[in-house]
Parts: sequence; structure tokens; C-alpha cells
Amino acid sequence: MTEIGKHLYTSNQWQIIKKEFIKREAITDGSNFMIGNGYLGYRGTFSEDTKDNFVGCILSDTWDNADGKWEELCTVPNALYTAVYHNDSPITVDTNLIDFNRELDIKHGITKRETQHMIEKAVLSIKEEKFASMIHKSAIYMKYTLKSDTDLKVTIKTGLDTNIWSINGHHFKHEKLKSLDNALFIGTTNTYEDEVYVYEKLISSIDFKPDTKTVKKATIHLKENTPVTLYKIMMTLSSNDYEQPLKEIKDLYQSLPSYQEELTQHKLQWEALWEHYDIQISGDIFTQVAYRFNTYHAIIATPTHKSLPIGARGLSCQAYQGAAFWDQEIYNLPMYLHTNPDIAKQILIYRHNTLSGAKNKAQKHGYEGAFYAWISGKTGKELCPDFFFKDVITGRKIRNHFNLWQIHISPDIAYTVNKYYTVTHDDEFMNNYGIELVFEIARFIASRVVFMPRRNRYEIHQVQGPDEYHENIDNNAFTNYQALFTLKTALTYLNDFNQNTIDAIKESISLTQKEIALWEDIHDKLYIPKPNHHHVIEQFDGYFDLETIIPATDVKQRLINDEEYYGWPNGITVFTQCIKQPDVLQLFHLYPNLFDTKTLKANYEFYEPRTLHFSSLSPSIHAILAARLNKTNDLKKYMKKSLSIDIMNTNEAVSGGTFIGGMHTAANAAAWQIFVYGIAGFSQNEDTIIFNPHLPSNVTELSFKLVVFNHPATIKITQATLTIEFDHTLPDDIHLTVNNQTVKLTTNLTLNL
Amino acid sequence: MTEIGKHLYTSNQWQIIKKEFIKREAITDGSNFMIGNGYLGYRGTFSEDTKDNFVGCILSDTWDNADGKWEELCTVPNALYTAVYHNDSPITVDTNLIDFNRELDIKHGITKRETQHMIEKAVLSIKEEKFASMIHKSAIYMKYTLKSDTDLKVTIKTGLDTNIWSINGHHFKHEKLKSLDNALFIGTTNTYEDEVYVYEKLISSIDFKPDTKTVKKATIHLKENTPVTLYKIMMTLSSNDYEQPLKEIKDLYQSLPSYQEELTQHKLQWEALWEHYDIQISGDIFTQVAYRFNTYHAIIATPTHKSLPIGARGLSCQAYQGAAFWDQEIYNLPMYLHTNPDIAKQILIYRHNTLSGAKNKAQKHGYEGAFYAWISGKTGKELCPDFFFKDVITGRKIRNHFNLWQIHISPDIAYTVNKYYTVTHDDEFMNNYGIELVFEIARFIASRVVFMPRRNRYEIHQVQGPDEYHENIDNNAFTNYQALFTLKTALTYLNDFNQNTIDAIKESISLTQKEIALWEDIHDKLYIPKPNHHHVIEQFDGYFDLETIIPATDVKQRLINDEEYYGWPNGITVFTQCIKQPDVLQLFHLYPNLFDTKTLKANYEFYEPRTLHFSSLSPSIHAILAARLNKTNDLKKYMKKSLSIDIMNTNEAVSGGTFIGGMHTAANAAAWQIFVYGIAGFSQNEDTIIFNPHLPSNVTELSFKLVVFNHPATIKITQATLTIEFDHTLPDDIHLTVNNQTVKLTTNLTLNL
Repeated sequence: MTEIGKHLYTSNQWQIIKKEFIKREAITDGSNFMIGNGYLGYRGTFSEDTKDNFVGCILSDTWDNADGKWEELCTVPNALYTAVYHNDSPITVDTNLIDFNRELDIKHGITKRETQHMIEKAVLSIKEEKFASMIHKSAIYMKYTLKSDTDLKVTIKTGLDTNIWSINGHHFKHEKLKSLDNALFIGTTNTYEDEVYVYEKLISSIDFKPDTKTVKKATIHLKENTPVTLYKIMMTLSSNDYEQPLKEIKDLYQSLPSYQEELTQHKLQWEALWEHYDIQISGDIFTQVAYRFNTYHAIIATPTHKSLPIGARGLSCQAYQGAAFWDQEIYNLPMYLHTNPDIAKQILIYRHNTLSGAKNKAQKHGYEGAFYAWISGKTGKELCPDFFFKDVITGRKIRNHFNLWQIHISPDIAYTVNKYYTVTHDDEFMNNYGIELVFEIARFIASRVVFMPRRNRYEIHQVQGPDEYHENIDNNAFTNYQALFTLKTALTYLNDFNQNTIDAIKESISLTQKEIALWEDIHDKLYIPKPNHHHVIEQFDGYFDLETIIPATDVKQRLINDEEYYGWPNGITVFTQCIKQPDVLQLFHLYPNLFDTKTLKANYEFYEPRTLHFSSLSPSIHAILAARLNKTNDLKKYMKKSLSIDIMNTNEAVSGGTFIGGMHTAANAAAWQIFVYGIAGFSQNEDTIIFNPHLPSNVTELSFKLVVFNHPATIKITQATLTIEFDHTLPDDIHLTVNNQTVKLTTNLTLNL
Repeated sequence: MTEIGKHLYTSNQWQIIKKEFIKREAITDGSNFMIGNGYLGYRGTFSEDTKDNFVGCILSDTWDNADGKWEELCTVPNALYTAVYHNDSPITVDTNLIDFNRELDIKHGITKRETQHMIEKAVLSIKEEKFASMIHKSAIYMKYTLKSDTDLKVTIKTGLDTNIWSINGHHFKHEKLKSLDNALFIGTTNTYEDEVYVYEKLISSIDFKPDTKTVKKATIHLKENTPVTLYKIMMTLSSNDYEQPLKEIKDLYQSLPSYQEELTQHKLQWEALWEHYDIQISGDIFTQVAYRFNTYHAIIATPTHKSLPIGARGLSCQAYQGAAFWDQEIYNLPMYLHTNPDIAKQILIYRHNTLSGAKNKAQKHGYEGAFYAWISGKTGKELCPDFFFKDVITGRKIRNHFNLWQIHISPDIAYTVNKYYTVTHDDEFMNNYGIELVFEIARFIASRVVFMPRRNRYEIHQVQGPDEYHENIDNNAFTNYQALFTLKTALTYLNDFNQNTIDAIKESISLTQKEIALWEDIHDKLYIPKPNHHHVIEQFDGYFDLETIIPATDVKQRLINDEEYYGWPNGITVFTQCIKQPDVLQLFHLYPNLFDTKTLKANYEFYEPRTLHFSSLSPSIHAILAARLNKTNDLKKYMKKSLSIDIMNTNEAVSGGTFIGGMHTAANAAAWQIFVYGIAGFSQNEDTIIFNPHLPSNVTELSFKLVVFNHPATIKITQATLTIEFDHTLPDDIHLTVNNQTVKLTTNLTLNL
């Protein structure tokens, strides 16, 4: 057993084990030790826990608005609730605790607890083991075992806990409880009147009697060292997934396999997933475990059963509304794109499914084309409220403009469509979805730019770049560059794709030659901030004139209240060069081959000390760029920082009065990018894959799988060599560039570094 | 003697008399009872007062920046300082006060004080009388008299008080005291190293001995009921006005007439001024006195000795930096334009003199042409700091954008140039100044608009209209309309003026046909918000969607701190329709004949209840429009409100932590507009003068003088008739329209109403 953090251990680098109960960490442990399957998330709480301990089962595709302001996913009643009492007193995790052990089995998606409690003279052991089935995604299985080293009379209560932890109001305007074998909960949501079902299956030989309407109880005599085990299955689903949800849930009740049968299949399924996503990292145990921990959370956050957004907090809680941000394409999608591209396709099809939402948003604000929601739920409607944070000093709400000004979300999607095509050459996707997406986004750009007649150029005003602390800025380099890339891509597609297809798309979206001529004009005359004589690109007009504070964290001395929002309109960073996260550097990340190393270096060295990393999106990009620059110390520092965000609980759960806790899904997914884009230095062009490896000193070997132009490959990188192996023969026209040397790709290749 | 307010009286409607000493009113009384002549202002304080009582002599054309942030006019040492002591104790205005009388003689520009103090068993009377000479503008005269009803030994101290009240730091980096007959102060300012001179002339038979370096003293025995009088003349000037200031001040010392001689000439000069500016108002004593009080202050605020800005607080204190805002053209200039147009011309020449400042400002921000300073001092450089107010709750500075976004100042000047021409037909002015001004402002507009390619129109983004509580707005109706008017005017001038002149101007400012074609295009395609189906014009894009609070003053309940700034970025009005002052209505004021009465009425009734009147510019516009709409109650209410601002001290002296006290010079000057534009309903076209009189019930007759197309006229309006008389015969081609009936103007005309 190796210690990898405070009270945190691993045995074979496929699990995290916590050996100390710390009550104040309930909110973060509940996320870290959670289970899920992309259909639902079930927080890592204990069977006897209630809403006070942030118990939550978050069900996908159940958006509802309870407070008139925030649309979010529902948390549903907890059908796994099981508590033990002694002499009418509940035994909770911290009751006379003498031994504590909890574990997340990352490899198999199982969460476990084993605690021992001194109850009078008996040592009572409580064990639970839960998994959110990867086979039947509506089902969460639990095995619950009590054992005492001395005869002990205890009472078990088990059932459905309908007391729900919900951040922004109660989501069920109608609630029904049906008495079938056990209580069946049916809730009707406020806004869309979806029906949410929760049903409990209890497998036990104990003779339970009703306690409350939804909870049963039984008093039993535990015999010395004789375990008593019960099994429960929580089933939950919504009318958005089943036409006859009641029938479905009754069928499940009848048909679900036993705990052991399901567990066996579930574990096989997880092992198959790791075939895609695992990276074997030699040399540093923390790094290996943390990679797997992060990737586990990236996987369970991703809905694969149908096209739904990947929530910024996955399904770990309701924060950020269970909705997608630009994180989805820029942070979450790449791992899938290069390992399991069908999932990347599904993510992009979600954007196509939500085109009408994006078009409505554009129209509402007087624009055209696809203006994607900053916070996008099922339909693509903008879920970001006008007032996101509050001024904690005055109590007044703050009008942030994420929804209106952070327009780069749209070209970020176009960029990703093009990247998907570069990697997959998937013409069918492009013809059915991709080209239209790019055209509609180009259309939006063309309606959003302004032409400055006397400067004879187009500009983009009043935006917010990735660095959210500076709102209302003009000519954000990142946004302008992404806009230009979108137009360029659209114009290229017009020529390069099959003309019949293009003509059909043009007709179906009423794209005229006049519009295309405008795209060309904007493409030719859009102002793009260029590197200055120090090779640094200005983040936006006037950024260089702002106050310099280095290191950026010194700005914190100006805080009046620790929970203050740092940005708009009058937070402590607004008039300074302190930035929340990479903005210009994000551009270098997205276009690894666009600028030379001198320019990358100048920008990295300029912006890095100005960056607060107050976004979980920040350290990973710095790690990747540090790897490209052979800045080993920075690479190690930012890699560790990024991998640690959740596992070491380094981030705040509340900002500007708004709860932002839960898993940092984008950072979780960025772990893969750190190793593949950063350390392996991987990128891909039309016909070439590129590696520029830079292993930090604490990593002796990396091994991972990629799908390269639809051909699965295994890559091994050591300090000395890079090996690439394919199972099949390869087409003639693909190449490999390693550290600027290009060779033709063959099925088994080892290059010295 | 008639009471016109609390402790405030008048005898013949040409003075205000205050009969109660109220210490906390020192700051406002010091302004209300001040004297001045456009060259300097001397606050209405008492001879023994010091900086603690806000003594101040503000000298024109002495801008200096002491604190690195605010450029402001200097206050200079007080050479009139004279105090009386009894047994080493000073007798100040409130020492055993038994009778108090102070008076501002409006007709003659004299301020007086007479107080009686019980000193042991004696009643000591102190009288002072001061005037800022209208003949020698560097000189302030004082007559100071002591009298006791019982023999009394007192000590008089008199001299130069160098302890200066200055709002934003001390302005003299070097100070010299020369010993001539009396102490001569020479201060060198920090920024521009101007020299400021202050010298004292004492005329007295008392044998004073030195007390301090700059103060003399004498102990005298006052005989029962035998007054002792001394005279003082304070002389002050700066090196900006005289090449040899020392010689000038010594010459003045020798040559200045005696108190009585100067007073006689001074009074005649004031009577001559009132020939231009007085309005005789019958029916309401308060209204008559208040009109004269306001106009007196408008006159003494206006520099006429050379082209300098009219300060927003005149020369009553240093607030608003002694600098011009748009108030100068829109509020102060009209009275001069219609009564004494040379002064209006001089004001506009000031704008021509500062063209280079406006061009520099445009260039600095990436624009062209003349972008006038929001706060304009001598050179036209922008004096408005980026951070004007502070957040009184957090203590953090607030970035207001008056300087960057309140762009309407430029077209307001173009509008006024054109108005000047309409009234005067002064081609010489136009050829030398006016046309160039309009062209350079049109040029600025053309560089500031943005073209929205898909809307096929120009728009104006990111501005602040007259209502300063809403910053960062797009398509402010007022700004867009003024911009359009500027372009239209420029295009008209290009055709209508002598082509040789136009060609010469085009050449001298390098105005190309391409630029002119752009002006035409913008003129044709600039988006102008039109009245909606309720006939209301939206103040800016999205205004109608903001929260409605009626009456607007209810929003005050949301204040956390009474001194909070209400506007940007997060003040209580920002997300509401509550506006500081007229914005759309300002448009109706500037273009009385552009919209029909139905539209005026709809807009008045929509915006009036949404207006907080937290600008002193607000009530006058409402009074004028109420008169046009025959809304008698509103007319009376807003007329009284506007006339009362200073005389009744209704406004706050501090906002957002910034001192904004002093005389409200624009509101002072607006008094004239209320009567002439509002109640008389006067306006003027190319060849016609128009009256639509609406006397409120408390006014039985108005009588005033106008210069109509360079012909002086006297107008009398009663409820029944309007009479207009000229001294000379008139040209054939000018007309009079009264209540929509047009007649040819003759030298003596009476029309029934």
C-alpha cells in the first residue's frame, strides 16, 4: 500500500483508498468516490447518509427550473438508503468509529466502505459496496453487510429516502408514491413535466416491516462474527428515456440479474473501456493513479446512451447545471477523438441536434447562424442566467455576460468539427452534420463582426475570452483567431467537398453567394492581433496597458471577502493583467504547429506569471505547453496541479456566492491531453501524425493506444525510444513525424529519440 | 421684505437676504453668496473665515494637477482676510451672535454682511461689502466697518491668508512671499509652472504692525457708535494672462481707483449686463428673484476676457475641475446666443481653439477627427480621469467611462455651431471656424460608427447617453440622432457654402471625396431608433427590457450607503429603467419642431416618471417640455425645482466619494431657457422666429430682450397677448409664427394669443 496523499493510499495503482474519516470533506469525498455510468451519477456517500451529507443521485436528461433562474438536472430520491440503529440511536459513519476504510476501485467502477464501530462492548463492522451498472444503466447495485464480534441486537432501516439534496429548489411539482413490492417514487418536474421514477429492489432474508411510508425496518440479532448481508438495487429513469417508463421499471425489477452476475459483466465492461483510455505510466505512482482517477471521472461523466451534453461537473452534482460549456469540445472530446472516435462523433452530433437552440439564441440577440449557448442543456437553449454570481459584499447580483459575450464557444465547435474530420476523414459525418455546423457558425461570425469603415477592417467587439475575468473587451486574440479559422474552414469546405453535397447544404440552409462573398471579405479583412516586437500577442485591445502584478496571486491581497468574484464588474483583477486562465496560450494549445517555438516561449513566459489558475481548465494547458518548451519543472508542477484538482481537493466549492463544487470534468479529461498532447507531443495533420516527446524525469515510460486514421495503434515512449505498433497493415500515404524527422508509417516501428 | 425661502428674503426682487446663520450651510452659502466676474470667483465667506469655512478665490486659466489624477483650477491665498479679536479671542460670525444679515445684491454683483455680537456689554457690529470688479477683473474690493455701541478695545488682524482650501492637493510647488508694501504671494504651479500672483492693498488710517509674515495687526479703541472703516483690494492674476505679471500687479496697486469710484463703474457695468439678460417676471416674487439669482451666477461663471471654458461649477469652487462639459453648449450658450451672440461665438471659438486636443484624443483611441474631451480645460486635453467615483462600500475606485463612451459631446458641438449659424447668419465665423468644426466632428463620427454587414446598417456601440447611469449601451437614440444630424449638416455645408471656402477647408484638413462618400453612406444607413407603436423612442437597445420602477425614486430603497454612486457598474439603477436625467427627452428639447406633439407627449409621459432628476440638468428640460405640452402643474413643479437647485440647496455636495458641490452653472443658465424656450415657446428657423407661449398661472407677464437675426427686440407676453418691438426697421424676409400663425415681422407688433 502506497501513500499518495494525506490519508490516501493505493495498492496496485487502480484504486484510491482513504483511511481517515474527515467530516468536512463530505462534499469533495462525495464527488471523488462517486460511481456513475454517463446515465446517472451516484455520489460517494454512505448508505445511512442523508441530504445533510450531500447524498445525491443525479439523473441525466432531467433538466428543470425550480427557482425561476437556474435550470439544472434533478437529484432523485435515494433508494439505497440503509441505516443501522442500536437502542434507537443511529450508527452513522462517525459513531464510535474505530476503523475507517473507503475505496474507489477505479478499474471496475466500484465504491466501497468498511467501518468498525465500538457499540457497547461489540465491534460492529459495516461494509458496503456499490456500482452504477455499465450494463443496465438505470441500475445501481449495493451489497451491504453487518458483522459484530459479539452478539448484538441492532435495527436496520432501509428504503427510499425522499428527502433530496437539491441546490436550486425542489424539482417535483407532483410526487406520487405507489405501493408495489416496495415504494415506487414518481415525480413530475416543474418546467417540462417529465416523469422521474425511482424504485427499490431489496434482496434479503430479513423480515422487514413498514416503518414510514417508504422505509422498512427490522430488528435482528447479530451473532458473533456471523455476517448478515442484504442486497439492494436502485432503479431510476425518466420519461425522457422510455415511452413506458412504468413498464420499463417493473420489467427491470423482474429481470435484473443478481448482484454477482451483474458485477461480473460490469467489471468486464470497465476493463474494455480501459482498453481505450488507459495510459500506463511508469516511474511515479501518484501520477499513474491520478491519471486513472481523473480518466475514470471523465468516463462516467460522459453520456454515451444518447446524445447529451457532458456536464461541466459531470453527474457529480447539480453545479453548472449538468450542462456543456466549451469544455466539452476543447477538454473532453479529444481523448475520445483519438481513442474511440464514435463518442467524439456523438458529442458533435449533440451540437447538431442543438442547432435550433443556437439559431434561436442568435436571432434573439439580432444575429444569424449558430450562436451556441454558453451553458447548453438538452435543447441548446441558453441556460446561463444573466446573473450568475453575486457581489458578496453588497449582496447584489452581478450581471456577468458569459451568455452574451463569450462567443468563442461557437467557433470552438467549428474548430472541433474540423479537427474531427482531420483525424477521422469521416465524410459521412461531414455531409450530414459537420459542414452545416461550420457554415452556420461562419454565418454567426459574419453577423457578429463589425466593420470599421475608416480602419478598413473587421473587428470583434464586446467579447469575453477564455480568461473570464476580463469582460467587455475588443479584439480578443483567441476569439478573433477562432473566428478567422471558422471562416477559412467554411470557405475551404465550399471548394473541397463534393459539390452536390455542398449545393444541397447551401440550398437547405439558404446560403447565398452574397453571404459567401461577405465571408471572403471578412476572412480577408478581419483584424488579428499579431505578436509584438517582444513576440507577445496582446490578449485584447488595451491589455498591455493594464496594471502588471507578478506573481498574479499577489492580487489576492486586495480581497475584502474571500468569496468575492474576481472579475466583472469591479473585482480585484479587472484593471490588472491578472488572468484567470490561459487565453492567448489556449491558442498555442489549439494550434500546436501554427507559431514557432520562439513565439510560444515568449508568450508562455509573458502570460504564465500573470495567470491565477483560478479555473480548473488552466494547469493542464500550462503543463502541455511546458512540455513542448522542455520546461521540465513547469511541466511537473502543472501536471501535478492539474491531476490533483479533485483528488487533492484544491479548488473552492463556492465563488461569488454560487456553489461550484463537484468533479472538474474538463480537468479530469485533460489528464489524457497532458500525456498525449503534452508529454508525447502528439498532433495530427491531414496525412501525418506527429510526436515530440518530452518525458519529465519522474516518468520513465508511457504506453497508450490511439486510433490513427481509423487504425488502432499502441504507442510506447521511453526517454530513449518511441515505438508504434499497429494490428493491421496501413495505407501507403500516412506518415509519422518524430522530433521533426518524418518517416512512412509501418505496422511496427521503433525510433530513437 | 418678502420671505422667499427658509430664512431667505428679498426686498425689491434684486437681492437675496439671509437672516439666520446656519453653520452647516457654509459650503452652499459660500457658493450662493459668492462674487465673480468670469475672470475669478470669490466665495461668499466672511472676512475672518479660513479654509475650514471653505474660503476660496478660484482663478481662471490656472489648471494644475497636484495629485496626479485631477487637473483643476487653483484656489489662491485670500488677501481680504480680516479678523477682529477681543482679549485675544477671535470674534467670528457665530461669536455671541445677536443679529445676522447677509445679502447678495444681484443687480450690482455685491455681497454684504452685517452681524452684531455681544462682546462683554458692548454690541459690536461688523459690516463688510465686497465686489469682484467688472472693470478691473483682477481686483476684488472690500469695505470693512466695525462699530460698537459702547467703547470697546479690539484687535484687528488683516493680511494674506496663505492657508488655501484646495480639493485635490496643493497646487504650488514653489511659493515666494515678496515684501513690498504688503506681502506679495507668487506661487508656481506643479504641472505647467504657471505663476500665480496675489497682492493686497490696504487703505486704512490705522497703524498696523506686522503680526505674521503676511498678516498685520493693530489694537484700536472703538468709540461708542463711531464706525471704523478700512478698505482692501485683493489683486490676483496669473502669468497666463500677462507677460509681465509682476509689473501688472504693481501697476494695479498704483492705479486702481478708490472703492467708491470703482463701485460706481462696476454697478453701471452690471446694469448694462442686465439689459441683455434680465427677464421681468410678474406674478411671483420667488420666481423673479430666483431667475435673477440663477442668471447672475450664469454670468459670473462665464469667462469673457478670453476664450476659456465655462466650468460646470463656474468659478464657485474647484469641483468638476473648472472645466467645460456638454453643458457649455447645450445649457450655457443659448442665453448668450439669443441676447449677446458675441459671447456665444467666443464659446464656440474656444472649441475651435481646442480642436487639436480633440484630435489628439481621437487619435489616442484609434479614431479620427475631433473627439472632444468630456471634461475640457484650456487645451481641450481630456481632463476626465478614468476613475471618477469610488465604490463607497468597498472603497474601490470605479472605472466610469464618461471620457471614452459619452461621445455625444462632439456632435453636441456641431449641433450648436449650426444653431449659431441659423440664429446669426454669421458667415465669417463659419468660414473661419464653424465649417471646420462640423467637418472634423463628422470625421470623428465616421470613424466611430460600426457597420453591421448583415444588418446592412451602421450602428453606434458602447456609448453613454446624457443619462449617465447606463453605460456601455448600443444605439443610444440621442447619440445616434446627434451623429446623424452632424453628418447631414456637414453634407449640407459641402454644398451650400461658397465653394472656394469649402475647397480651401477641404484642402487644409485633407478631406477626400472618399471620406465624403463614406459620410453619405453613413448618413443613409445609420440606424436611428424610431418611436414604437406607443410612439415612444427606446433610449438604447434593450432599455425597454429593463426593470420598471415607478416612481423612479423608489429605487432609492435599494441603497446600502447614501453616498453610493447609482450607476456603473453595479449601482442600483443599472438594471432598471430609472434614469438620471432626460435622454430621449433631451432630443425633443434640442429639436422642438422635429416630432409632433403626440410623440412628445408619449415620450414625456413615458420617461418623466422614470427620471430621478439626479442631475441638475434635468428639471429645466422637463419644465420646458411641460410648457410645450401645456402641462401646467409639471411646468410649475419643474420650473421651481430647477430654479431652486442652488438657492434652496437641494442637491448633494458629494457623490460616490467625490466632492461635487458648488454652483450648478448649467442649471443657472437654464433658467433663461425655461422662460424663453419653455414658457415663451421660442425657437428660430432660417427666416422665422416662433413663439408658442404658455404662461403658468403664477406668471402674469414676461418681458425680455432678444437679438433676432442681429436685430434687438423686446418681447412682452401676457396671458392674452404677445408684443414684439424693434428699435430699427427690419429686413423684408423675416417672419414671426405665434401659435402656428405666421406674419411678417414689423417693428412693432402685438398679437392676441
